[in-house]
Amino acid sequence: MSGSGTAGATIGEASEVEALKRIFPRLPASTATIVGPGDDAAVLAAPDGRYVVTTDMMVHGPDFRLAWSAPYDLGWKAAATNLSDVAAMGAVPTALVVAIAAPASTPVADLERIADGLRDACAALAPGCGVVGGDLSASDTLTIAVTAFGDLEGRAPVLRSGARAGDTVTVSGPLGRAGAGLRLLFERAVDETGEPDRARFVEVLAAHPDAVTAQLRPEPPIQDGPLAAIAGATAMLDLSDGLALDARRVALASGVAIDIDPAALGDDAQSALTGGEDHGLLATFPAGTVLPGGFRAIGTVRDGDGVLVAGRAFDARGGWDPYDGWDGNAG
Amino acid sequence: MSGSGTAGATIGEASEVEALKRIFPRLPASTATIVGPGDDAAVLAAPDGRYVVTTDMMVHGPDFRLAWSAPYDLGWKAAATNLSDVAAMGAVPTALVVAIAAPASTPVADLERIADGLRDACAALAPGCGVVGGDLSASDTLTIAVTAFGDLEGRAPVLRSGARAGDTVTVSGPLGRAGAGLRLLFERAVDETGEPDRARFVEVLAAHPDAVTAQLRPEPPIQDGPLAAIAGATAMLDLSDGLALDARRVALASGVAIDIDPAALGDDAQSALTGGEDHGLLATFPAGTVLPGGFRAIGTVRDGDGVLVAGRAFDARGGWDPYDGWDGNAG
Repeated sequence: MSGSGTAGATIGEASEVEALKRIFPRLPASTATIVGPGDDAAVLAAPDGRYVVTTDMMVHGPDFRLAWSAPYDLGWKAAATNLSDVAAMGAVPTALVVAIAAPASTPVADLERIADGLRDACAALAPGCGVVGGDLSASDTLTIAVTAFGDLEGRAPVLRSGARAGDTVTVSGPLGRAGAGLRLLFERAVDETGEPDRARFVEVLAAHPDAVTAQLRPEPPIQDGPLAAIAGATAMLDLSDGLALDARRVALASGVAIDIDPAALGDDAQSALTGGEDHGLLATFPAGTVLPGGFRAIGTVRDGDGVLVAGRAFDARGGWDPYDGWDGNAG
Repeated sequence: MSGSGTAGATIGEASEVEALKRIFPRLPASTATIVGPGDDAAVLAAPDGRYVVTTDMMVHGPDFRLAWSAPYDLGWKAAATNLSDVAAMGAVPTALVVAIAAPASTPVADLERIADGLRDACAALAPGCGVVGGDLSASDTLTIAVTAFGDLEGRAPVLRSGARAGDTVTVSGPLGRAGAGLRLLFERAVDETGEPDRARFVEVLAAHPDAVTAQLRPEPPIQDGPLAAIAGATAMLDLSDGLALDARRVALASGVAIDIDPAALGDDAQSALTGGEDHGLLATFPAGTVLPGGFRAIGTVRDGDGVLVAGRAFDARGGWDPYDGWDGNAG
């Protein structure tokens, strides 16, 4: 950025009010809006007298690196991951509020790209969902906090606790691809000291576009959440921490065992079981249900507890903890 | 903190799951909860088919200093400021979601204190309001993002755009006290280099408890928001950036002038006009309205534009910008 003139101004130069004036027109509108941005709070419609709420924060360092993620990607991923949590309740996403904290040196143009990513993710994944409010703060650490809302359209929410022995275990969306992308980035898109490196990132992206894009700009099957609810899903969960760990959560909450057929997991069952951040949906349906949307069977719910693979206990943890191995803010 | 054993563990030592296990039982429940924390998303009741939403982020550095604010204060203030935005729509606060990003070295006990502050602020200011979801992330910069929800109870939301010539201008809550507290902190609770200093803070707090507490642990008159709506308020705003700047917003949105009587502002009218972060309510009512709750008249709405004091244009900006004069993350 040139640093001169409005177009190249940083947040520190432009002031909060000017920055917001440039960002807000780029944001998508929500069809649920009764009172939109610009007052103390927004007012949204909840046609059936309930609403679904989830929140998630993305922090530079543990959650993304600017050497790898463009600002557009950050906006996209912040929307997509929250939309997926709404969909996993069986709800249709209706609106987001977005709080961003950024260094004063951040170009306002970067915030515009974040807004573009939010807009395009909503349009592609959850048409009608829009941004109804936000906040812009100063911080040494770029941080994006999204809260997402959804409408159950009169249906019961699909919890993680409803799986019953005999149900079919299914997933929608790719398994292990985003995790493979993250491994590629940490192994190959770094310099000699292990720090994220933009030039090497470009090479890795060119060689493995599917895996890297699945990590940086995921496309969760949002529409499959409400479809699963309509089809009678007994339990559902967003696949954020890896199939094995997320299946264990359903098993624990439902008081059952989840038995996964490794033959249904593709060529690399281990990666499918343990790779995180796919943001697909794990759902259980009564046996014999005609599976809706992109759902495919991968196993069976049984009496017992924990996760089984081909009938044998699977103890690998699989998921990840944001504080585990975190090395701070570099890259 | 000792650093050994569960009680003294840091977030990095305790893992996200263990930390959340210690935090969640301390958080207040919401009477609007249909599905509470622990699934992909919460489900809340919206009895009249609408809900109010606002979000605000507090960042170490520009928004608070740990040399001055105890973790308990941070939780309290994060709740109070968001509850105030809900109340300023005329709504009753029902629920919060809270995303916290903290350094791995943060004691879990500090998060427990933040939770205690959230709990006590909800209980004191908005009984029945509770925390229905959250997120915990790693970050070099302690950051607290709150999204708050409210119920309009069948009433129209009170916007900033409804003030009409002839209306009475009123406020509820103290004016200028929180700003005075911030000035005291920056002038006297710092060391020789201007950095926040804990020992000097303790002295300043003892000498000026009202002003310092108004800054660090504000008690906005939340219940006065719904009371104003019931009494027929034509416009309302949370006083976050100082009376003059916030009155200017009402004037601009409503297409009127706000004429403030300095005699109604107490001994220090200048501080009352320009001090930010009071988090009281500015409301306009039709002339002759019996003012509800803690509201008191401070002026009159007139034809024209902008803010007048005793009938003369008041141009001092008053408020503050988070990027203006920000010196980073120290203290």
